[in-house]
Amino acid sequence: MRQSPYLPNRPLKVAVLGSSGAVGSELIKILEQRDFPISELVLLSSERSEGKKIIWKDEVLVTKKTTKEQFKNLDLVLASAGGSISKKWLSTIIDQNALLIDNSSAFRLDKNVPLIVPEVNASDVLNHDGVIANPNCTTILLTLVLAPLNKLSTIQRVIVSTYQSVSGAGQLAMEELKLLTEQYLQGNPQKSEVLPYSLAFNLFLHNSPMLSNNYCEEEMKMVNETRKILNIADLKLSATCVRVPVLRAHSESINIEFADVVEPKDALEELKKS
Amino acid sequence: MRQSPYLPNRPLKVAVLGSSGAVGSELIKILEQRDFPISELVLLSSERSEGKKIIWKDEVLVTKKTTKEQFKNLDLVLASAGGSISKKWLSTIIDQNALLIDNSSAFRLDKNVPLIVPEVNASDVLNHDGVIANPNCTTILLTLVLAPLNKLSTIQRVIVSTYQSVSGAGQLAMEELKLLTEQYLQGNPQKSEVLPYSLAFNLFLHNSPMLSNNYCEEEMKMVNETRKILNIADLKLSATCVRVPVLRAHSESINIEFADVVEPKDALEELKKS
Repeated sequence: MRQSPYLPNRPLKVAVLGSSGAVGSELIKILEQRDFPISELVLLSSERSEGKKIIWKDEVLVTKKTTKEQFKNLDLVLASAGGSISKKWLSTIIDQNALLIDNSSAFRLDKNVPLIVPEVNASDVLNHDGVIANPNCTTILLTLVLAPLNKLSTIQRVIVSTYQSVSGAGQLAMEELKLLTEQYLQGNPQKSEVLPYSLAFNLFLHNSPMLSNNYCEEEMKMVNETRKILNIADLKLSATCVRVPVLRAHSESINIEFADVVEPKDALEELKKS
Repeated sequence: MRQSPYLPNRPLKVAVLGSSGAVGSELIKILEQRDFPISELVLLSSERSEGKKIIWKDEVLVTKKTTKEQFKNLDLVLASAGGSISKKWLSTIIDQNALLIDNSSAFRLDKNVPLIVPEVNASDVLNHDGVIANPNCTTILLTLVLAPLNKLSTIQRVIVSTYQSVSGAGQLAMEELKLLTEQYLQGNPQKSEVLPYSLAFNLFLHNSPMLSNNYCEEEMKMVNETRKILNIADLKLSATCVRVPVLRAHSESINIEFADVVEPKDALEELKKS
């Protein structure tokens, strides 16, 4: 059954799923900064992270283990706990007539799920069945550059290489980078447990599974999600995704081939405006 | 006057110019490892680094300030002290009928100077007037990949993004990265003096001067040197050079467009052979 695309026009009961993680913590901060209209904020986590105290608008909230009861009367669920968790709780969320805004890759390529970068395709947002997805972090950066430039001349081909910080691998990976770097500087051996190798003064191809076409999952996310967001099904795009020893903020080197000649100054102008 | 292209067939009197630097130290190690036929090794340095003791084949050698007298009767000078130093001493070296193998960018694009990657264009080496240059570190990596693949099908266009370690900026920059990272981990402010910004858990575009075409000098070195080494004057090549917080070993993400279809398995096969 198709839901109303609109959220009710009153303060909302909101849950953050994955509230103790790196993305969850940022989400909570931003909800406070923006003074998002919230009647009640429910912080959900795994059993392992249950009981963590988080300050929210001068209140102390406690993260709770995710159970069916916690979803009662929710209006909005912001999920960033991985694809399997989002899939697990989807029907419970839909049953409550709540809207799921999902940061995992679980539903991104589902044709009934809008995949939104607000600056690029905000108008697609209402066309949902209860789930709105947001893209992979690297896709967001890429589309923010491609979408305005595509107005100057149709983009034919994109070659992108990423310089991805460890924040995308979660809080534990960030702690691991700091710890292993300290061990390196002290001349002690480093043993990685969260990421496949030590990132201390090191880099390696993105740690997602390698697919049969010799691109890793992260690289194909960039290809498929960018095509969907820009609505160019046959966009030629090749991505190389690399983890670098940076704690926060991804970077990308992007080479774009246009249908017509685009002057660098016009491209720069368009990017400044956007 | 054109020199004999051959070095004399006896142990040589060799000088290392820039012997106290990161590259100089590696050079000295390799000369020892390879048991290069040397009658006398002269370690030259700036006034600042004079008097540094270096172990060479169970002898203790001392770096000496570079003066005209030090070049007397030399057969071979290996220089890695920067372009201005190489230029300053060139006529002195030529006067001694010695051969300069230069690691700086001073003579690389000079048409009378062979620019050599031994695995790629070793046969060009004899065609010299007293100077043989070796390319920029990033160019070497790139041509080692492009040269064998160019045999499969003519390379038309190359997009390369680098992940450059700090070793290329010298020993002081390496020390600075370790120091600033330690300060970051201790929660102290970081102030860079060798590089323009702190590289501690950070990255930035290569620190060479920006040119009028909006590529930096390092990026244009890759373009011009690669064209010369591969002997493809009109090769389309675009490079983006980035410094990453890695101590040693550069990495590159390379996208190649061939004239004909090249199967990934054939490309891999060719690279394995090379």
